[in-house]
Amino acid sequence: MSAGSSDAGDLTAVRAVDLLIEARWVVPVEPHGVVLDAHAVVVDGGCIVAVLPIADARKQFSPRERVVLDEHALMPGLVNGHVHNPMTLMRGLADDLALMPWLQEHVWPAESRVVGPEFVRDGVELAIAEMIRGGTTCCNENYFFPDVQAATYRRFGFRARIGLPVIEFPTAWASSRDEYFEKALEVHDSLRGQPLLGTSFAPHAPYTVSNESFERIQLLSNQLDLPVHLHLHETASEITDSLRDFGMRPFARIKQLGLINERLIAVHMTQITEAEIADCAANGVSIVHNVESNMKLLSGFCPAEAIRRGGVNLAIGTDGCASNNDLDMFGEMRTAALVGKMIANDATALDAATILRAATLGSARAVGWNELIGSIEPGKQADLAAVRLDDIETQPIYNVISQLIYAAGRHQVSDVWIAGQQKLRDRQLTDIDTVEVVAKARRWRERIAAA
Amino acid sequence: MSAGSSDAGDLTAVRAVDLLIEARWVVPVEPHGVVLDAHAVVVDGGCIVAVLPIADARKQFSPRERVVLDEHALMPGLVNGHVHNPMTLMRGLADDLALMPWLQEHVWPAESRVVGPEFVRDGVELAIAEMIRGGTTCCNENYFFPDVQAATYRRFGFRARIGLPVIEFPTAWASSRDEYFEKALEVHDSLRGQPLLGTSFAPHAPYTVSNESFERIQLLSNQLDLPVHLHLHETASEITDSLRDFGMRPFARIKQLGLINERLIAVHMTQITEAEIADCAANGVSIVHNVESNMKLLSGFCPAEAIRRGGVNLAIGTDGCASNNDLDMFGEMRTAALVGKMIANDATALDAATILRAATLGSARAVGWNELIGSIEPGKQADLAAVRLDDIETQPIYNVISQLIYAAGRHQVSDVWIAGQQKLRDRQLTDIDTVEVVAKARRWRERIAAA
Repeated sequence: MSAGSSDAGDLTAVRAVDLLIEARWVVPVEPHGVVLDAHAVVVDGGCIVAVLPIADARKQFSPRERVVLDEHALMPGLVNGHVHNPMTLMRGLADDLALMPWLQEHVWPAESRVVGPEFVRDGVELAIAEMIRGGTTCCNENYFFPDVQAATYRRFGFRARIGLPVIEFPTAWASSRDEYFEKALEVHDSLRGQPLLGTSFAPHAPYTVSNESFERIQLLSNQLDLPVHLHLHETASEITDSLRDFGMRPFARIKQLGLINERLIAVHMTQITEAEIADCAANGVSIVHNVESNMKLLSGFCPAEAIRRGGVNLAIGTDGCASNNDLDMFGEMRTAALVGKMIANDATALDAATILRAATLGSARAVGWNELIGSIEPGKQADLAAVRLDDIETQPIYNVISQLIYAAGRHQVSDVWIAGQQKLRDRQLTDIDTVEVVAKARRWRERIAAA
Repeated sequence: MSAGSSDAGDLTAVRAVDLLIEARWVVPVEPHGVVLDAHAVVVDGGCIVAVLPIADARKQFSPRERVVLDEHALMPGLVNGHVHNPMTLMRGLADDLALMPWLQEHVWPAESRVVGPEFVRDGVELAIAEMIRGGTTCCNENYFFPDVQAATYRRFGFRARIGLPVIEFPTAWASSRDEYFEKALEVHDSLRGQPLLGTSFAPHAPYTVSNESFERIQLLSNQLDLPVHLHLHETASEITDSLRDFGMRPFARIKQLGLINERLIAVHMTQITEAEIADCAANGVSIVHNVESNMKLLSGFCPAEAIRRGGVNLAIGTDGCASNNDLDMFGEMRTAALVGKMIANDATALDAATILRAATLGSARAVGWNELIGSIEPGKQADLAAVRLDDIETQPIYNVISQLIYAAGRHQVSDVWIAGQQKLRDRQLTDIDTVEVVAKARRWRERIAAA
């Protein structure tokens, strides 16, 4: 990699810009499945202003900084469609357990002891470091203390949709339904005008949120045009419990409450009927697939290919580190592609380009930002990730996108930009002190393990 | 990491040894599930001579070399139970296809153009580099030109069980059944006395090998005490075809031919009945689970937990890079653990320690070397892998084995030894020229892609 001034070329046509990234390959995601050989991405004011052959770019643009990535694929930054990032501090706390014993006997008791502003701040910081090192430039967050989350994402210039939690029991964040809503609106108001942040309502799940709360969320999300980020149909028992308690499936109940619309981000959906797929497609619902967490907690297999073929927007997420146990979107894409073939009974299902699209543009659309990010197109934000492909493990190269999905590891991500700001430079985080982040994680481990 | 002389301590008790490795954690695999804090592994003459607390090791041994791994878990080298390593040069040649179109339309035509001694040599070299960088110290090889494979594994001091191929059609390796057997015995004889190498018979599959050949293999493997490395019950259609052609399932046919015994390494086994599991257990058959390849080629799900609970030795393999598309045993362990829970319908199935055991001692037993390798025990060969756990991605640490399986990536492997010889030192290969290996892979890519 080298930085320097560009060849001047025809001076009359030269436009001064912030950054010119010259890549061996550019994988723009849109158009679908395309790999551009020896192309440049031109960035100015945080935005992509052109994507063109390197030779043309050198003639047309005079960049303040030039980055040469001659063994790399440059792709859109990955968008993690579902995280609980403060829980990164609970990575590997309890494994090899089903969802309910994991939650009730391990996660909730641990949370009751430690969750507060410091835990949320330090967990999000650890997560941001991990996400950037893995080529992720945006996440869809879902946890308590959204104010602290927002401050932390803002501090490190990381793009995030911040969930405003609603749940029917008291937590360290709020003690009553009214308080959850008051605080949600307060945090939402405080983030107006933040360029990299947005909010969503995040009712926890149908089994922990009342009809009254869902109704308020429906009204408010409509008024404020906010997404609704909801764990839905995570397990089979969620369905049977809902049939017992409400006389209908959670999806039907949520629909009755007016929430099946283009603002809904339905997470997990391991249980879904053909009719529900059609309903999601017709109403613009996005579904976030979390294949690794769903297997680890024995939640079920989400039929991702059937959902996609049914016309539903498919997004990819890792879920929280306490269940996954990582924020590795490369690993998640690979697993989603492999498992997806078996569940669809079709080896051509969820091919490499389709999975890459789901983890970028699909997740961007889920969080309502598909006009802003998710592909390398002029006019979009410069959220970019470069992946070195000259390692032993990704040689030889017949198909760049196949290599990204089926062979590359996240440690091959060399450089990352968010809104044109470089966050990772040749594997080094530009504004996070790794040693300090690890030291903090170790201190939290002592506190959590001691209890 | 640092090297130096040890503290002398009580001189009368000091024993001179080659190497003392001091690790933050030692995961010996045997005893099962144990993590030893601040332990040392003492190596002499290529063998492990002691595993004991660091302080005691410093008193009792005077090592010529000392390696300090203060942020690492030291574990047995991984044993890849099923590979076709020359095919590493075909990584990503054709993806998102089922087994038969993948084989018939892509792999076999490509092989017919390029397979020969140079292809095998360069493919194995690339694979050895990848395996060592990923903590793998032994593999169970299955491809043509076993003589060239053996020479290449020997050149780099890598431990391998080399399959002697038998298939009922002419290839670049042999043109008739007799020639396959003649060459097999010739290669077997030539490798007698090689400390790191052994052979097996490798009849390709029930659908490509005749009863006559299986009978000869049964006799010879018995005489020579050689394992038989066989693709068995890889897909459902293999079963239906066999029922049509032989009036019985492949397993029954192989059993009739006398091959269901403790020498059989049955690879894939996506189709297996309770009775077949019991038969495998009663007769000491090992089953190699290749979960990622089986999903990618839509071969089926091997019921790994049922096999293990049924008393069968379970091993883990990646299969070849043309289908996987890597030799990443860390990825394979993680996927096997996650998918295994779903297939067993039990979140506690194939827990982290059990999967680590399958990928080390289980695979070692499959290749007949469980007395030699697969765990860190005095008397065994010093085949070791150290994994750095102080990366952002593996913090904090509540459970070391969980971290190895569910969070660590193979790029965190820092140091590797085979029979006490250091093959990877702080991420650098000690005797392989990475630049040259990549350059060769690129030249093969040009040749293969051009056709």
